[in-house]
Amino acid sequence: MDKTEQDQLKKEAATKAAKVVKSNSVLGVGTGSTVAFFIDALGERKEKEDFNLKHIVTTSNRSKKQLEELGFKVDELADIDQADLTVDGADRVDDNLDGIKGGGGALTLEKNVAINSKKIIWIVDESKLVHHLSGFPLPVEVLPVSAEQNFKRFEEGLKPQWRLDENGERYVTHYGNYIIDLAADPTPVPHGLADYLDHTVGVVEHGLFLDMCDEVIIAHSDGTIEDKKRK
Amino acid sequence: MDKTEQDQLKKEAATKAAKVVKSNSVLGVGTGSTVAFFIDALGERKEKEDFNLKHIVTTSNRSKKQLEELGFKVDELADIDQADLTVDGADRVDDNLDGIKGGGGALTLEKNVAINSKKIIWIVDESKLVHHLSGFPLPVEVLPVSAEQNFKRFEEGLKPQWRLDENGERYVTHYGNYIIDLAADPTPVPHGLADYLDHTVGVVEHGLFLDMCDEVIIAHSDGTIEDKKRK
Repeated sequence: MDKTEQDQLKKEAATKAAKVVKSNSVLGVGTGSTVAFFIDALGERKEKEDFNLKHIVTTSNRSKKQLEELGFKVDELADIDQADLTVDGADRVDDNLDGIKGGGGALTLEKNVAINSKKIIWIVDESKLVHHLSGFPLPVEVLPVSAEQNFKRFEEGLKPQWRLDENGERYVTHYGNYIIDLAADPTPVPHGLADYLDHTVGVVEHGLFLDMCDEVIIAHSDGTIEDKKRK
Repeated sequence: MDKTEQDQLKKEAATKAAKVVKSNSVLGVGTGSTVAFFIDALGERKEKEDFNLKHIVTTSNRSKKQLEELGFKVDELADIDQADLTVDGADRVDDNLDGIKGGGGALTLEKNVAINSKKIIWIVDESKLVHHLSGFPLPVEVLPVSAEQNFKRFEEGLKPQWRLDENGERYVTHYGNYIIDLAADPTPVPHGLADYLDHTVGVVEHGLFLDMCDEVIIAHSDGTIEDKKRK
């Protein structure tokens, strides 16, 4: 499949997600190439229908800019109570609709938006699907103050690697923290690892998004769009 | 007891703690009026004996300044592996040597130093002792992005209050976050609350220091010094 076909497929999946959004609702919007098509589809609905959104919050400046260019007003999470729906991408999604996110480094904001959303839809292409969470390093955002100690802790089996920026320096998040990517695949039941990381002093957030996603819209390479809901 | 007597008592407790510190060890140093006497006592040992410290980390600029004035070199937690011992104060200590800390707003740094210490001694006066953790609002450091949502969550029974600064504005921590003080006393078994807070997205750290402290040196109002060790 060439890029045009791939984009066409992403666009279809994104349009399907955009149809689910209720007018005058509060929407959370993530980031990524498929989400960009989703935002375009929202813009089309705004132009063609009597469609607008009460509030929008986003997890990136890129999505914010795109939304504002289409005439949508973007708010901060502090301005809203809860999002009715958040649409985002994911780096990996397993059979239980649990996922790994944070490849782009915004896991903390993404999880804060997610946890304050009534419903979550992820749009992904087939390559993100796994049976058990694996195949993508798990990002962990850590306070610099004890980052060395936590890196050393993670060396006991979790294969930590410092996230680096384009200059080869440690990547610094929006919140002034570091990211340690854990290359060891989580166990088939990732809740234990999430629990360990939640309890680790100095860990701000991690990229395991468990029991959160309600629906995944998948663009398959054979050209079909699959809509998978949490059982 | 007047202030002079009180200070004398704090000084005795602090001197007792300073005697425990091994020369050439790695020491964590907290903050507070009794800890200030502890630092003075370290200075005296440095002057009178063949005593120095391999590394020192502190949880406040005040302690750092005092230590440097006495000729000690202060390092960052990133420069050391682990502290052999950390000496700090506490806002409340219960019968199990579990405590509430963070009245001064530095709970996150304090907990990061504590968790990376082989041994922890708290020096407190009698007024800080409680049978079950209570009588002091529990500080919770939260990311501003979802602080409103978490405040609302805590309203379900935890009596949250925004920590304010001297201008009546929200207090901002060293890490750029807010503090929500929970005025509801934790249950006699505070681990459940700690667990809940550890799992709450947007909570950076909380002031429950459980299963951490090894020894408490207590200045009693009757003039005695008590040394209580974890059973």
